[in-house]
Amino acid sequence: MYLSYDRPIAAQPLAFHTSTVNSSLERPVGFGVIGVGLMGEFHAANLARRVDGAQLVGLADPQPGLAEAAAGRFGARLWTRDYQDLLSNPDVEAVVIAAPAHHHASTVVAAAQAGKAIFCEKPLANTLADADRAIEAVTHAGVPFQIGFQRRFDAGFRGARALVDTGKLGEIQLLRSLTRDPLLDEPERVTAGAIFLETLIHDFDVLRFLAGGAEPVEVYAHADALILPDWRSRGLLDTAAVMLRYTNGALATADASFQAVYGYDVRAEVFGTLGMANVGDVVGPSLVHHSRAGMTRSRPHWFIDVFREAYVAELVHFAAFVRGNAEADNTVGDARAALVLALAAARSVQTRRPVQVSDVTG
Amino acid sequence: MYLSYDRPIAAQPLAFHTSTVNSSLERPVGFGVIGVGLMGEFHAANLARRVDGAQLVGLADPQPGLAEAAAGRFGARLWTRDYQDLLSNPDVEAVVIAAPAHHHASTVVAAAQAGKAIFCEKPLANTLADADRAIEAVTHAGVPFQIGFQRRFDAGFRGARALVDTGKLGEIQLLRSLTRDPLLDEPERVTAGAIFLETLIHDFDVLRFLAGGAEPVEVYAHADALILPDWRSRGLLDTAAVMLRYTNGALATADASFQAVYGYDVRAEVFGTLGMANVGDVVGPSLVHHSRAGMTRSRPHWFIDVFREAYVAELVHFAAFVRGNAEADNTVGDARAALVLALAAARSVQTRRPVQVSDVTG
Amino acid sequence: MYLSYDRPIAAQPLAFHTSTVNSSLERPVGFGVIGVGLMGEFHAANLARRVDGAQLVGLADPQPGLAEAAAGRFGARLWTRDYQDLLSNPDVEAVVIAAPAHHHASTVVAAAQAGKAIFCEKPLANTLADADRAIEAVTHAGVPFQIGFQRRFDAGFRGARALVDTGKLGEIQLLRSLTRDPLLDEPERVTAGAIFLETLIHDFDVLRFLAGGAEPVEVYAHADALILPDWRSRGLLDTAAVMLRYTNGALATADASFQAVYGYDVRAEVFGTLGMANVGDVVGPSLVHHSRAGMTRSRPHWFIDVFREAYVAELVHFAAFVRGNAEADNTVGDARAALVLALAAARSVQTRRPVQVSDVTG
Amino acid sequence: MYLSYDRPIAAQPLAFHTSTVNSSLERPVGFGVIGVGLMGEFHAANLARRVDGAQLVGLADPQPGLAEAAAGRFGARLWTRDYQDLLSNPDVEAVVIAAPAHHHASTVVAAAQAGKAIFCEKPLANTLADADRAIEAVTHAGVPFQIGFQRRFDAGFRGARALVDTGKLGEIQLLRSLTRDPLLDEPERVTAGAIFLETLIHDFDVLRFLAGGAEPVEVYAHADALILPDWRSRGLLDTAAVMLRYTNGALATADASFQAVYGYDVRAEVFGTLGMANVGDVVGPSLVHHSRAGMTRSRPHWFIDVFREAYVAELVHFAAFVRGNAEADNTVGDARAALVLALAAARSVQTRRPVQVSDVTG
Repeated sequence: MYLSYDRPIAAQPLAFHTSTVNSSLERPVGFGVIGVGLMGEFHAANLARRVDGAQLVGLADPQPGLAEAAAGRFGARLWTRDYQDLLSNPDVEAVVIAAPAHHHASTVVAAAQAGKAIFCEKPLANTLADADRAIEAVTHAGVPFQIGFQRRFDAGFRGARALVDTGKLGEIQLLRSLTRDPLLDEPERVTAGAIFLETLIHDFDVLRFLAGGAEPVEVYAHADALILPDWRSRGLLDTAAVMLRYTNGALATADASFQAVYGYDVRAEVFGTLGMANVGDVVGPSLVHHSRAGMTRSRPHWFIDVFREAYVAELVHFAAFVRGNAEADNTVGDARAALVLALAAARSVQTRRPVQVSDVTG
Repeated sequence: MYLSYDRPIAAQPLAFHTSTVNSSLERPVGFGVIGVGLMGEFHAANLARRVDGAQLVGLADPQPGLAEAAAGRFGARLWTRDYQDLLSNPDVEAVVIAAPAHHHASTVVAAAQAGKAIFCEKPLANTLADADRAIEAVTHAGVPFQIGFQRRFDAGFRGARALVDTGKLGEIQLLRSLTRDPLLDEPERVTAGAIFLETLIHDFDVLRFLAGGAEPVEVYAHADALILPDWRSRGLLDTAAVMLRYTNGALATADASFQAVYGYDVRAEVFGTLGMANVGDVVGPSLVHHSRAGMTRSRPHWFIDVFREAYVAELVHFAAFVRGNAEADNTVGDARAALVLALAAARSVQTRRPVQVSDVTG
Repeated sequence: MYLSYDRPIAAQPLAFHTSTVNSSLERPVGFGVIGVGLMGEFHAANLARRVDGAQLVGLADPQPGLAEAAAGRFGARLWTRDYQDLLSNPDVEAVVIAAPAHHHASTVVAAAQAGKAIFCEKPLANTLADADRAIEAVTHAGVPFQIGFQRRFDAGFRGARALVDTGKLGEIQLLRSLTRDPLLDEPERVTAGAIFLETLIHDFDVLRFLAGGAEPVEVYAHADALILPDWRSRGLLDTAAVMLRYTNGALATADASFQAVYGYDVRAEVFGTLGMANVGDVVGPSLVHHSRAGMTRSRPHWFIDVFREAYVAELVHFAAFVRGNAEADNTVGDARAALVLALAAARSVQTRRPVQVSDVTG
Repeated sequence: MYLSYDRPIAAQPLAFHTSTVNSSLERPVGFGVIGVGLMGEFHAANLARRVDGAQLVGLADPQPGLAEAAAGRFGARLWTRDYQDLLSNPDVEAVVIAAPAHHHASTVVAAAQAGKAIFCEKPLANTLADADRAIEAVTHAGVPFQIGFQRRFDAGFRGARALVDTGKLGEIQLLRSLTRDPLLDEPERVTAGAIFLETLIHDFDVLRFLAGGAEPVEVYAHADALILPDWRSRGLLDTAAVMLRYTNGALATADASFQAVYGYDVRAEVFGTLGMANVGDVVGPSLVHHSRAGMTRSRPHWFIDVFREAYVAELVHFAAFVRGNAEADNTVGDARAALVLALAAARSVQTRRPVQVSDVTG
């Protein structure tokens, strides 16, 4: 379109209002970020800069200096090594929990008891008992809650879901999902169950998200130390594959690896009686290099390059949800259901048998 | 990679430091934005939120309320209907000029005289005389200047340029470029020369950017009112094609349309003795829908969806340039050279003959 | 290249000799085709027209008129309802067995006893006992044998294998394969085990072909009647998923459906420590249609449009193998190994447990 | 679909009959091939093996042994060094003229006078006078004629034309076309005008084929010796670009090179008020190799790999046309119109001015 680049947005053709700068008249939601690791810092940056409807109030991290440095960087007025300081501050209406996974559940409980709205990175917990305690606290407090399954806010995954929801794919029969991280560089920091609890948990969520309402009833999984065989004896699992069966007979497969040298690779496929949707064939810059060696495109290695906008969108949604302007999504139910599948997969590896989901939840 | 999502960025593998949140210890450059139309508002949003090293100080627009509203939205402390108020403010070190094109040159002159660093949207001017007056003022004042050819900051175009610069494409022989806007909705606001001065001027710049140092010496162009034939009598040109010959014999073609119903379409191709680079095959979400009708992907219609990061990157570069941390790019020379080609093309349409570049500059 | 279109091929640049018309000085191998169904007719057409080194001598099919009609069409001088007539003819040096699957093993035995070279469509047999009888006959007679896993002769699959063999993908860790036929139109002709014995058997072969030498040791499978639920009671299985574990810990998944409305879909993926290869993203004509609805490409629905050249190549290879000019490929060992996996998968569905390959072969 | 691979084609679902083996009850058209260079040999192979409705009767080439060798290879019973032997043979109903371009017109005249149906490789002639003599002979004799613009029989180009004809692209406004051969290896065999008369003539035809009925009225062209600058003095032109204006104001650009190291590159694009079609993004095997270096696909270097089926289809059509079962396509009018554009382009290079088509035809 021949846009009138010198006219205000409000005078532009209607179609173009929405996708650009958006602002809200409502009072922004005050946020505290708990855990200033990579994800916490990234969420903080988004809250400070890109999430309309949010204001970054403060950050907490037990490691000296970390919260303070980030607060300076993003213009937050509060920093602390004790996240209770955030929970007791009335300007903090909502928290983003980006602490190590084994602290998630207890932090959720504390935040719920403090009456804060809670955005929690996945997984909700490492055990079902912990998850249920956290859910109980959230439910009892009646606070808004959202789990960090950001793929649901990626335009590709969201588009696939829309095809499912509108019936364009018909009855869903087969699904595929995978997650392959680019580099396993610190095996000593990887917990034994991480490939299911922290990586494939995304796939488990996606395989629920795109299944048209059917729920997995059986999980069969294998996992091994193929990248670093020396670590097998320490229980490290760096490569895994899973097969799921759903209530309605639909079938799904998934796999994961901690080291895909070609880049960060997250894909999903949903196949039904009327068609198929593929998500995740992400390329880098729109550059194709043609030479004697063929045609080459590059692809992203950094997960934020793939999901940059999804991470913003999930927080935009959460802020709107806190203000009552959006429906709940990525609920405690979703958090729990994906965790159950991850635990079932881990159990399947141990028992070398298919595991019924009801045996885990029961 | 198995990232330690709960560890600070500084503790992450080195490769991942750069592409995420970045912050500078230096004092940010104070910016004033002149013209709060679509582009001005978008630049203001970027300056306020996404450009490390920049601070949005104020905005100016003659239309009542416009600058004030944007100032509120983006947290700028200054707003005015008279841009001289920005030029006289010492906190404003740099201006972004996003006023209508026919005001660009005079605003550049005023800003240069006020000693401000200048980022000017394209075109620098609508005539060569005006451009030369602006360049004279900038040169005389010795202020940093950058023209808004954002394609040079798009990762795809930049990658193509890198292939050229490193010799991977060999001697450049053929180039192609095109720009097709999605919707011609306000023909009454389109000036006669706009297709060359405001649209194809990007292509002219790209065709210089990717030519490996060769300069166009001849321009032949056709243009017509094909979308809105009724406007032909009023001189509106909505569709154009151009052919260029370079100093070294290389050849280029380009075309433009104000209405591509399938989306915003900007592409370039550079072909040399050792290979080819294509840029601009941009798709939307990573979703492919397979149905009886075939495989369908969507593509962006909104130019900001295509160049969102390039618009940030050009300002990041400009701020660094102002602070002396980056080389000049998109210089007055580049601004003038593309304008010369646009003027040559317009003259070619009028005379129905090939136009020598030297006849325009001479 | 500026080819000299009017000069003979022998005078063209060397690089272009090989890929065009090729002819052999050797006496062509005389072929008989047993079974003139779709595949038999297609093989016959290829033998008559496109396979250098082959000559179509005769055809046999019990259905009256079928062999005769095809013989007329393809210029074969022999037709019969009894394939023994082919086996007793000295001009028939080799047979292509394209009879129904349950006749494969006995026909192989008869052909081996007649001293014919044997190209047999998959599967070699429907039971392991039958397969072993056929293999015994082939081995005893010492006749050349090749099974019809044509994917191994597709340029894409062959290229993936070359990446594996040359170490470009490193150690293989994860594999994926799928086969989805476009239309389940005659369920009454589908046998219960067909999804494993006739469809996924291709995937089982591919998952061996691309595994870098590792062999599957365990199979877990699910299958169901999802397309035609009414047929579930009759034992029809139209949708399946499988997971395999290899000797070296590598993992594979596969799925199959008898009805993919978007077309014929055969893909494979092999992932290793140094990279990944994908095969099978096949598109139709090189046409992309851009409209308001997005970008659309079509894809093939007819399996011959996907594997046309592979079906020629496998016979070219077989004819060369018969003449001693090529190594054995798609051997009895390959035929048996894929059958074992198919049988293991079928048993897994019945027992709802993972099946060890050694339990099937043992 | 679950095909019954063991049932005859006639018993398969109707949709699958057409695209496989096809045979005609009609007496095949007897063909003579004149000129047994690369194209002649390739056409002969197709006539002998793949063109239903055709029979290869004989071949002629002045070079000793050439016709004989090909006759042996393809089972033709007639070979000669004098094509008059073919023209006087009553079994030869049709000829394929694949002699050097400067012999095309006189051979067409001779064949027409002999009453043969004529398939002539492009160009029809090197001059308009010769072309008109050939056309006059064809018209006077009333024999079927078809020119070898095989792109019109490629599924991609044909699909683009169907989008134009059915109005799916609306009014055509912009077109682009290009032809880049992979290797300029025998410059001494290239005539000065070849880039227009033998290469871009295909593009000129495509730019007419896809223009929705509009005809070019003006041609502007540049050409140079960029690959082999030393040959410039001998008049060799190896690189060219062209711009066309049509009767209705539509605009087109095209370019050509004799040396594209990345492969054989033929593309076209047609842009209209309702959408766009791109043709020619051809890839090789369906293999994508993902490594640290990015994603790589290969592409064809050999023009027959791109147009293999189109070369068959044009002869299938021609044979049907000869038998009265198909409409004329690639007529003398098409042959002449493309030649006129090629001549206009060559004149434009000489005069360095835009050339009106009417000045060439007039």
